[in-house]
Amino acid sequence: MVKENGEVVTDGTMVMNLEPPTNPMVTSLLTDMYQITMAYAYWKAGKQNDRAVFDLFHRKNPFGGEYTVFAGLEECIRFAANYHFKEDEISFLRSVLPSTCEEGFFSYLVTIDCSDVEIYAMPEGSVVFPKVPLIRVEGPLLIAQLLETTFLTLVNYASLVATNAARHRRVAGKDKILLEFGLRRAQGPDGGISASKYCYLGGFDATSNVDAGRRFGIPVKGTNSHAFVSSFMGFDEIIERSLPYAEGGKICEDFVHLTQLWLSRMQDKPLLRDNFHETNQSELAAFCSYALAFPTAFQALVDTYDVLRSGVPNFCAVALALHDLGYKALGIRLDSGDLSYFSIETRKFFHLVEKEFHVVGFGKLTIVASNDINEATLDALNKQGHEVDTFGIGTHLVTCYSQPALGCVYKLVEINGHPRIKLSEDLNKVTIPCKKQCFRLYGREGVPLVDLMIGENETPPQPGERILCRHPFVESKRAYVVPTRVEPLYKRYWSSKPGGREKLPSLEDVKKHCMQQLAAMRSDHMRALNPTPFKVSVSGNLYDFIHYLWLSEAPVGELQ
Amino acid sequence: MVKENGEVVTDGTMVMNLEPPTNPMVTSLLTDMYQITMAYAYWKAGKQNDRAVFDLFHRKNPFGGEYTVFAGLEECIRFAANYHFKEDEISFLRSVLPSTCEEGFFSYLVTIDCSDVEIYAMPEGSVVFPKVPLIRVEGPLLIAQLLETTFLTLVNYASLVATNAARHRRVAGKDKILLEFGLRRAQGPDGGISASKYCYLGGFDATSNVDAGRRFGIPVKGTNSHAFVSSFMGFDEIIERSLPYAEGGKICEDFVHLTQLWLSRMQDKPLLRDNFHETNQSELAAFCSYALAFPTAFQALVDTYDVLRSGVPNFCAVALALHDLGYKALGIRLDSGDLSYFSIETRKFFHLVEKEFHVVGFGKLTIVASNDINEATLDALNKQGHEVDTFGIGTHLVTCYSQPALGCVYKLVEINGHPRIKLSEDLNKVTIPCKKQCFRLYGREGVPLVDLMIGENETPPQPGERILCRHPFVESKRAYVVPTRVEPLYKRYWSSKPGGREKLPSLEDVKKHCMQQLAAMRSDHMRALNPTPFKVSVSGNLYDFIHYLWLSEAPVGELQ
Repeated sequence: MVKENGEVVTDGTMVMNLEPPTNPMVTSLLTDMYQITMAYAYWKAGKQNDRAVFDLFHRKNPFGGEYTVFAGLEECIRFAANYHFKEDEISFLRSVLPSTCEEGFFSYLVTIDCSDVEIYAMPEGSVVFPKVPLIRVEGPLLIAQLLETTFLTLVNYASLVATNAARHRRVAGKDKILLEFGLRRAQGPDGGISASKYCYLGGFDATSNVDAGRRFGIPVKGTNSHAFVSSFMGFDEIIERSLPYAEGGKICEDFVHLTQLWLSRMQDKPLLRDNFHETNQSELAAFCSYALAFPTAFQALVDTYDVLRSGVPNFCAVALALHDLGYKALGIRLDSGDLSYFSIETRKFFHLVEKEFHVVGFGKLTIVASNDINEATLDALNKQGHEVDTFGIGTHLVTCYSQPALGCVYKLVEINGHPRIKLSEDLNKVTIPCKKQCFRLYGREGVPLVDLMIGENETPPQPGERILCRHPFVESKRAYVVPTRVEPLYKRYWSSKPGGREKLPSLEDVKKHCMQQLAAMRSDHMRALNPTPFKVSVSGNLYDFIHYLWLSEAPVGELQ
Repeated sequence: MVKENGEVVTDGTMVMNLEPPTNPMVTSLLTDMYQITMAYAYWKAGKQNDRAVFDLFHRKNPFGGEYTVFAGLEECIRFAANYHFKEDEISFLRSVLPSTCEEGFFSYLVTIDCSDVEIYAMPEGSVVFPKVPLIRVEGPLLIAQLLETTFLTLVNYASLVATNAARHRRVAGKDKILLEFGLRRAQGPDGGISASKYCYLGGFDATSNVDAGRRFGIPVKGTNSHAFVSSFMGFDEIIERSLPYAEGGKICEDFVHLTQLWLSRMQDKPLLRDNFHETNQSELAAFCSYALAFPTAFQALVDTYDVLRSGVPNFCAVALALHDLGYKALGIRLDSGDLSYFSIETRKFFHLVEKEFHVVGFGKLTIVASNDINEATLDALNKQGHEVDTFGIGTHLVTCYSQPALGCVYKLVEINGHPRIKLSEDLNKVTIPCKKQCFRLYGREGVPLVDLMIGENETPPQPGERILCRHPFVESKRAYVVPTRVEPLYKRYWSSKPGGREKLPSLEDVKKHCMQQLAAMRSDHMRALNPTPFKVSVSGNLYDFIHYLWLSEAPVGELQ
């Protein structure tokens, strides 16, 4: 019996508390209508308690790559832990089902929960491959079926965007700071919130999304926009101009004047003067004002009027003034134009300023870039050369622009102990029947070699053993492997049986696991161009059984 | 002063109640961090009450088309109506802002709301074009700025997916039923819920998403899946086999037997027998069972084993048995393979059955298709010929696969009565300054000709007048128009001033408005291939002013 808030009470030996899913809109009604009609039909046929096994898996890696980062598990488990129908939800269902449906079904719906369900899954953040189930749900047919749509909704986008983040991290390189900036372009509010969470999981450092920071403890970053810069008309608007020195004690009475002084000092230096003439004064006023508000965290958006002729020199004047008072500016943000050119020219100018005014470290101030960046832009910038330290990535990252959907499916593989198969003319859509055990076999130096699926009752492979790994569908594709290590892929994340369940790790731990898994992969599987597929296999026994079942279920054709 | 739940109390003459946004995660923290840092900087500079005007607009229509359907307005207004910071939200902000920030700011944040804000917008569901503001926000700089990210999040995806739905409707044709099936592939839970709402707005008939049905009153549809079909092993499982006749009174004691009888009758007819031999019996058992549960709404998914050799004949056997009892089956669903071929062959088979057994109407049973359908597939099916009545469209529709983001922006165009411009080397990114009035000018037969933006104080254009319409940036592009009708594009949807605000229409009325707007457009603007751009223009006065401001703000370059 599962009580409110996912507390599972069994024989008195265990109690499990789990929060409901992050988004309160994730309820038992967040599902496809056919789950409800099927539930009725199962109930009507007395099949509601048939013991079912469903596999949740993907058929193809996204973005033309050869790997996927699995994410969304915690939300699925929290959903299952709190699964139930409220009275008003049942009233709505009564109103949309045909009037021929019997009242007994609705009384039954009130009673169902996930206490008889067991959920096995790979750890969230794992690097995963097509056909190998990410989640296995075992339980009464009706309830296990009802979980389908919501589980898919929670896993598909989470895994897609986590994978996208991992791919962006790979091409940007380890030493760059990556910020997720996607909220405004996300597919709806929690497209934004989920993106922030799962991009962090996949390797990003921080987000602009305040609420994601609050909910998940992700570092939050942000400075200012073009509107801030253009909201200033001139210096007259800055009334309060005093700024205390960083060390305290002394006060600079007119920081605006100090800034103007630094601008004219810069104009006096021939090497600097070559780069600009009159800068935009309303922009300088905006920068001054921002520095007065954030003397310890001054960063300027420099492309409202003209990056090199106005934004960068104005920034430097303010930064030099701050430096006089013992502060250190952070740097600039570029949000348009040729990021390679502008970042290189800005860096040169910073170095010139450092040299002319002997300000140690000025050349290394941070350059943030954030204009429609994607994997390809990052790669092109790397090839052209650039001086960007931090990338703010939005639209392409969070909407997964180059492939906005992952096609995880949820398929019945066993019912009452009988394996089931779904056939298709498309080989890629045939499901692998049976309740399975799955393992990752490692080779020398701990490199993952192949994933292996075997039947529930087969003996698990052992390190040092010579193991036959077969392609599930193609007879000629097979190989012997002698693993140095064998890793069982599933843990039980939900169960009310004695022995309980694996604790859900923190987001930090999930991220750490993900980074370790990504780092362990052979680089040819991970590269963007023509990556090598990671091998996924079945045991000889399972291979034989799949093909026996296939032939027995498929009708024999007749060519005419 | 806005109280809890958006109740605005002014001088006692008006009270406005608005529900908060649909998704409870849409709060004042669902924003970019830079909005908060800017808010602090505005407050620190004493600029929080500067009177600002922001325009929300898009720069380019999506999907290579020449129109966009505007959606998301109601959610924005509900957000604004309920805008406030809670104590725990402010505590979080205090923890992420630098410790140098003054406490007075946080005390100030507690007090802010949208009672001094006015929001003008086009009606939701309007057909809209780049550069013409969809929403204009006027109010204190700090609060108007704070609305940016959330408004964009609420409008961008809503408008994108509504436009996508309208495009799918256009190519499918008016007589087809279109079902939105996207929840499982959507970008997160409310990517799913918003998709259902805005696809309905853009021309879809129903959704599979139960919760969207409950929340928005959208018709909900759904039957069964492959798992249902493959959960049956055989007829032994069907215990309760009796079914009352449609008219009541009589009862058929063994509906399974009746179905088997009809299958053998079909096998006795040479014309039918040519099409199939032994059908899959577990599939037939599943169909029987579903019909027993839903005798008034029997629909079968026919591609679990083999569409034409098993699924369709099995469906017909059950449908004929139902017909014996006075019921009428709905039809079949195809979820894989060549939809043109399978739908045509299925239709032929239905007609053969009608003829062989004299079942009037059997030939016209519904054929639903639902396998990775998009605009291009619909177009190809139209060209090849098909017999599909209803399309279930998921992934491509809800994730807007061919372009998953719309780039609406929110730009400051006026501050304290001074027009502001944002320059860019990319002409397309230059903003049109000033608080503007916008009109749609109509030609003969009520066809929209051009959108015209003019300054706040210019005299609105009049029908029958000869009006100069200029391209905002390209000097040579201009035209005289004599409109038969002039439609002001904005209504005031939020205000606490006397005169109040426009009532938010129901979803049904928004949909109706959208359908009327789409129907009124000249078809060359709407076609998929090389559509004609709809013209967007400014008055002569506004043109001159834009270019005056541009020159005065842009620094003069120097070629070296």
